[in-house]
Amino acid sequence: MTIAEQMKQIAIDARRASRRMADLSSSVKNQLLINMAAALENEAATLQRENARDLEAGRAKGLSAAMLDRLELDDKRIRGMADGLREVAALPDPVGEITGMWRRPNNLQVGRMRIPLGVIGIIFESRPNVTADAAALCLKSGNAVILRGGSEALHSNSAIGAILQRQLTELGLPAAAVQVVTTSDRAAVTELLKLEEQIDLIIPRGGEGLIRFVSEHSRIPVIKHYKGVCHVFVDAGADMEMAEKIAVNAKAQRPGVCNAMETLLVHREIAAEFVPRVVAALAAAGVEVRGCPQVRDLAPEVKAATEEDWDAEYLDLILAMRVVDDLEAAVDHINTHGSLHTEAIVTRDYANAQRFLRLVNSSTVVVNASTRFADGGELGLGAEIGISTTKLHSFGPMGLEDLTTRKFIVLGEGQIRS
Amino acid sequence: MTIAEQMKQIAIDARRASRRMADLSSSVKNQLLINMAAALENEAATLQRENARDLEAGRAKGLSAAMLDRLELDDKRIRGMADGLREVAALPDPVGEITGMWRRPNNLQVGRMRIPLGVIGIIFESRPNVTADAAALCLKSGNAVILRGGSEALHSNSAIGAILQRQLTELGLPAAAVQVVTTSDRAAVTELLKLEEQIDLIIPRGGEGLIRFVSEHSRIPVIKHYKGVCHVFVDAGADMEMAEKIAVNAKAQRPGVCNAMETLLVHREIAAEFVPRVVAALAAAGVEVRGCPQVRDLAPEVKAATEEDWDAEYLDLILAMRVVDDLEAAVDHINTHGSLHTEAIVTRDYANAQRFLRLVNSSTVVVNASTRFADGGELGLGAEIGISTTKLHSFGPMGLEDLTTRKFIVLGEGQIRS
Repeated sequence: MTIAEQMKQIAIDARRASRRMADLSSSVKNQLLINMAAALENEAATLQRENARDLEAGRAKGLSAAMLDRLELDDKRIRGMADGLREVAALPDPVGEITGMWRRPNNLQVGRMRIPLGVIGIIFESRPNVTADAAALCLKSGNAVILRGGSEALHSNSAIGAILQRQLTELGLPAAAVQVVTTSDRAAVTELLKLEEQIDLIIPRGGEGLIRFVSEHSRIPVIKHYKGVCHVFVDAGADMEMAEKIAVNAKAQRPGVCNAMETLLVHREIAAEFVPRVVAALAAAGVEVRGCPQVRDLAPEVKAATEEDWDAEYLDLILAMRVVDDLEAAVDHINTHGSLHTEAIVTRDYANAQRFLRLVNSSTVVVNASTRFADGGELGLGAEIGISTTKLHSFGPMGLEDLTTRKFIVLGEGQIRS
Repeated sequence: MTIAEQMKQIAIDARRASRRMADLSSSVKNQLLINMAAALENEAATLQRENARDLEAGRAKGLSAAMLDRLELDDKRIRGMADGLREVAALPDPVGEITGMWRRPNNLQVGRMRIPLGVIGIIFESRPNVTADAAALCLKSGNAVILRGGSEALHSNSAIGAILQRQLTELGLPAAAVQVVTTSDRAAVTELLKLEEQIDLIIPRGGEGLIRFVSEHSRIPVIKHYKGVCHVFVDAGADMEMAEKIAVNAKAQRPGVCNAMETLLVHREIAAEFVPRVVAALAAAGVEVRGCPQVRDLAPEVKAATEEDWDAEYLDLILAMRVVDDLEAAVDHINTHGSLHTEAIVTRDYANAQRFLRLVNSSTVVVNASTRFADGGELGLGAEIGISTTKLHSFGPMGLEDLTTRKFIVLGEGQIRS
């Protein structure tokens, strides 16, 4: 079989399996996930043997220590995967929810019922635990899933996939509900991305290169986010202690993630007092600040920001800082340089809080809290399959509900159209 | 300017205008639509003069009488466009709705607020009234819109666009909120479809050729439906009079539309009595039936169906008919040959109604009513911008709400992440 034929077969099998999975009761799906968790723990030795093959090949290829660390499945990570499956089992099942029902003048009852999307393709890099995490979310929401991880984790991903498939079979469910693509040929990805008849959604997880590649080659809808250039705006009259704590937390608590702040905007009326204070606090947290001329007038130790700094996603202990005339100027800056991910305002002014909430149409808009809360778990979605900064289907952190769609249901008593 | 540069400029202007439109109150948007309606009626003479140029060119090009008819803007159609705008003005505004709000353990309040998508591109064929209808729905939902109609309606579409833009300007709103692409070069479409940074959604409206072209060339998300191969399943023990009325209505009331029935499936236990009866009723309505061998045993006048008939979207007074063993066989047939558009069951059995509703995951699933109700207006959505048979973002008839997305809003009192 050519790679194209292999991928087609995988997708057809997934489509068939998805019909069965869509009709499972929550209790069967939960039992499946709990069994899978136990199996991952029981077969840790097998997993680690296969993982060792990947690690060895990685060392031979000269992967960095950080890459090798992400690849490794130690006891703690295997337990983490198993616990992740159990957590998803405990989440509410979105399938079957009727989100509204109304009666038409002709007595037809019309409603919308939540159903699985069908078949979901996950294209990801490096960390093999994504195999189990993503599979759990797709299965709990009644979908079949095709997983294609990085070639450096091929043996680990295959071993996880085999363990999960065995648990499907033991409950009399189709093994094709979870399939791991085991060819390392990159053509496998381009072939999968053509199968719009069989696959309903593609979610790429990884670096911007992977995401752009998937997005450009896919005929299937893709949910993606390229980057997070998140802003905090400190309004005139803000509680300065709160603003300082939020700024330091948003930048420095975990700088390498997409919901970390990259640019701090300060209202000019508060700048003289706030800028020196926050620059000092940031310096104490190890943050390098790059500022506009007004910032540098107030804090001469700050380096000069260039135009590129306003668009930068540093993912590091570096922060751009700018003094702005008012809330509208802050919104303009965000519209010009933002990535639609997450923006926050720190304010005591009711009208300005409302105005910021209304004018900023990023996927998460925050008043008086850290941007770091833009995360499925923190927002209360349970677990997160990804974050979308495109507006179609989902916008922002995505949980189980985002792996479903809604069909119309119409209940009649013989009505016809005239 | 090259066509690529022209399209880029249109899209950039639309993006800028969209920010202003997103923040308008409902009353301003409604006033705008009401003014636009009046202007279309007041400037009917201008419209008809421009329309006459299209009609003349169409006649010279040898367009069919049906095409010329669709192109014509007579007094009644202009009034129809104006009334359509007034109807959209009267619909509830989806923007700003908070669809849920909850409190997290750390006292953060988290909610989801409905916002416009931003910039919507509509690529359509022939009928110039789409310009006004689609613009109204996009504007009411707070979006900017770029419209590209068929080249045969260029003067008519441009004239409608100019009238709508003047009303925007008169209320001090950006004219770029409604832009009609006036170049007839097809490259304009391919260029627009590349502008994923500026345009959030593309909706193609027209034949399958146009939709496939748009879908294959677009980097922007596309909401589409290719075709409607809709089924009615008549269960054992169904009320035969109801089943007959629904079958005739679903097929013959308006056969040329996507929610008309194309295949009738009959449970074998009811076939002996129902098949001859419904074949006669359909014949009386002018319908040609093509049946499986069992159907032809019961109604010898029926022609033999070929394999192609099960996949056909006739859009005509032709119907495929098949006897099936049970509900599961009907569902299998629908899964194999259906288009995810609309399917109906006629039954008296509670469990079977529930089972059909659960197992059939088409965009509209109907119990005891005609498939012809799968329509935004009939389902109570107000007006319809299109029907989606892909599951992402929207599935089924799309109203104003489908031209919006939801952002997360987070209301804090200084919370940071630890």
